[in-house]
Amino acid sequence: MGAKKRMKLEKLAETASKIDSFLSTRLSGEPKDLYHAASYLIDHGGKRLRPYMVIKSCQLLGGTTKQAIPAAAAIEMVHNFTLVHDDIMDNDEVRHGVPTVHMRFGMPIGILAGDLLFSRAFETISKPYLHKSEDVGLNLVATLAKACTEVCEGQTLDISMAKSSKIPSESQYIKMIEKKTSSLFVASCAMGAISAEKNFSDVVRLSTFGRNLGIAFQIIDDLIGVIGDPKITKKPVGNDIREGKKSLPILMAIKKADNQERKVILNAFGNSSVSKSEVAKAISIISSLGIENAIKQKATYHSNAAKKSISIYNGPAKNELLSLLDFVVQRSL
Amino acid sequence: MGAKKRMKLEKLAETASKIDSFLSTRLSGEPKDLYHAASYLIDHGGKRLRPYMVIKSCQLLGGTTKQAIPAAAAIEMVHNFTLVHDDIMDNDEVRHGVPTVHMRFGMPIGILAGDLLFSRAFETISKPYLHKSEDVGLNLVATLAKACTEVCEGQTLDISMAKSSKIPSESQYIKMIEKKTSSLFVASCAMGAISAEKNFSDVVRLSTFGRNLGIAFQIIDDLIGVIGDPKITKKPVGNDIREGKKSLPILMAIKKADNQERKVILNAFGNSSVSKSEVAKAISIISSLGIENAIKQKATYHSNAAKKSISIYNGPAKNELLSLLDFVVQRSL
Repeated sequence: MGAKKRMKLEKLAETASKIDSFLSTRLSGEPKDLYHAASYLIDHGGKRLRPYMVIKSCQLLGGTTKQAIPAAAAIEMVHNFTLVHDDIMDNDEVRHGVPTVHMRFGMPIGILAGDLLFSRAFETISKPYLHKSEDVGLNLVATLAKACTEVCEGQTLDISMAKSSKIPSESQYIKMIEKKTSSLFVASCAMGAISAEKNFSDVVRLSTFGRNLGIAFQIIDDLIGVIGDPKITKKPVGNDIREGKKSLPILMAIKKADNQERKVILNAFGNSSVSKSEVAKAISIISSLGIENAIKQKATYHSNAAKKSISIYNGPAKNELLSLLDFVVQRSL
Repeated sequence: MGAKKRMKLEKLAETASKIDSFLSTRLSGEPKDLYHAASYLIDHGGKRLRPYMVIKSCQLLGGTTKQAIPAAAAIEMVHNFTLVHDDIMDNDEVRHGVPTVHMRFGMPIGILAGDLLFSRAFETISKPYLHKSEDVGLNLVATLAKACTEVCEGQTLDISMAKSSKIPSESQYIKMIEKKTSSLFVASCAMGAISAEKNFSDVVRLSTFGRNLGIAFQIIDDLIGVIGDPKITKKPVGNDIREGKKSLPILMAIKKADNQERKVILNAFGNSSVSKSEVAKAISIISSLGIENAIKQKATYHSNAAKKSISIYNGPAKNELLSLLDFVVQRSL
């Protein structure tokens, strides 16, 4: 592991421990079962990317870590709320290497644990004494609530896409991930800026940074899902092909392929009983079509847009945000 | 139907139409499926008791209907969010005489529709231009978020009680319904007072009113569930006995019964294959033990406490709140 990457991860871990100790105070209560279920996923993993972005955005604009902590904790609670409910909707059994919340505590408590994370997030940022002004608090609430609405909209678009027999267009796909994934990255950066009590144009610049980082994050994630090393992804080779996930690499490959190639890809796509060699054939076609480079170019485009949006700022927090961006785009495949 | 009761219901209907038109603006958007699912239950029924309480509490303190509308709409969205998720947890198939949201739209959209109602509620009250000051907005958010947390806690207590082989004590039961049911009534009255920009002691008085009204509401609801007329409840006679619902009338009856009587009640309790005549026997024992009167006395006790809490106020809104209280306690069995 390179020195730069190690430094980055250490920085993440440093912030994570501050967030985690604040989170544990916000997620203790009675009945114990419920609070245990709500903190279970948080206790079992996650890199705290979003809280890190809240804190660094706040510092970039001259704010302190302390000012950013409530918003940072709230965004992590909301992120985990979406994971808990997603796992129920997808009936997923494992996350972070442990049983999902509904598998461990039952479906009703799973739903309630998600709902509790949601309400606790809003309780956390609505305590007036945590902010210098009520204006900050109310702005944080409005930003977080809007992001939650967008996540629900994005999830629904994702479900419709999965159900439909049509292959979505690239722009439909980007619209979906902007809502489903980017919204919380936008909210993270915006809430950091709001916590620093900065003006509207700072909030807009940081939101643009978060939006582009979020898109880059998701399309690289999708690429890993198709051609990633199973030792790193901990999923079988070509998992997303077999599961029929209509992600960007697949959409681009289907569009670019000739009839014969398309047939091979579609034969493996969403086919749980497909053989390993057929999946390997499909992956080899996707590679030969230059999809990996095309996706990386797209990620770089969004990474550059993100960089540009914060170009007027300087200082260590800017460098930390930029190295987070690099980390997201250059994750090992 | 008496003239007084008819007048009350007309008043409710008058407020409901104002709330409904505001709600429909807050629950329209894309993807249509999601917004349709989120407004489906609201479109199919409900008396809008909680919004009515927000508006009347605001008016009682000199505020206008307009000031109270955002909070009134938010509490109705949250109430419906709890119903949508409850129906999934309980796997209930019918509500307001139509299929439940998850039956109609599928479980994933059901969960998302609930989540959307939740986020939209917070979006609605966090729009600064809707309030005279940010202070009002942030206080509304804090109050609503706290209530949502309590509902989750109450639901968990309810699930634990249902699972446990023990019969809970009366005080455990009251604690559960205070969280599960009363919380949203407390929030309704408190949010009305906050919308009227009144001080802390007004908020406390109105909260006490809501808390006691909520408890009275739930224990009368429980009585109806045990001995209610199936023509009105639209459920089979003694439905809650057959379903094994550990509600107050049952707890009181089991405590008061002698060994022989207790045996008859417990034989029918939670026994889906029990015969009609055995249910009838259990109900007749519950009646002979004077449970109906005891419950009504308890409801009256909470009704009186509610009345007392707002005794210092005067005017038409007070009378409307009091007649709502009478309506809740004197609902036909």
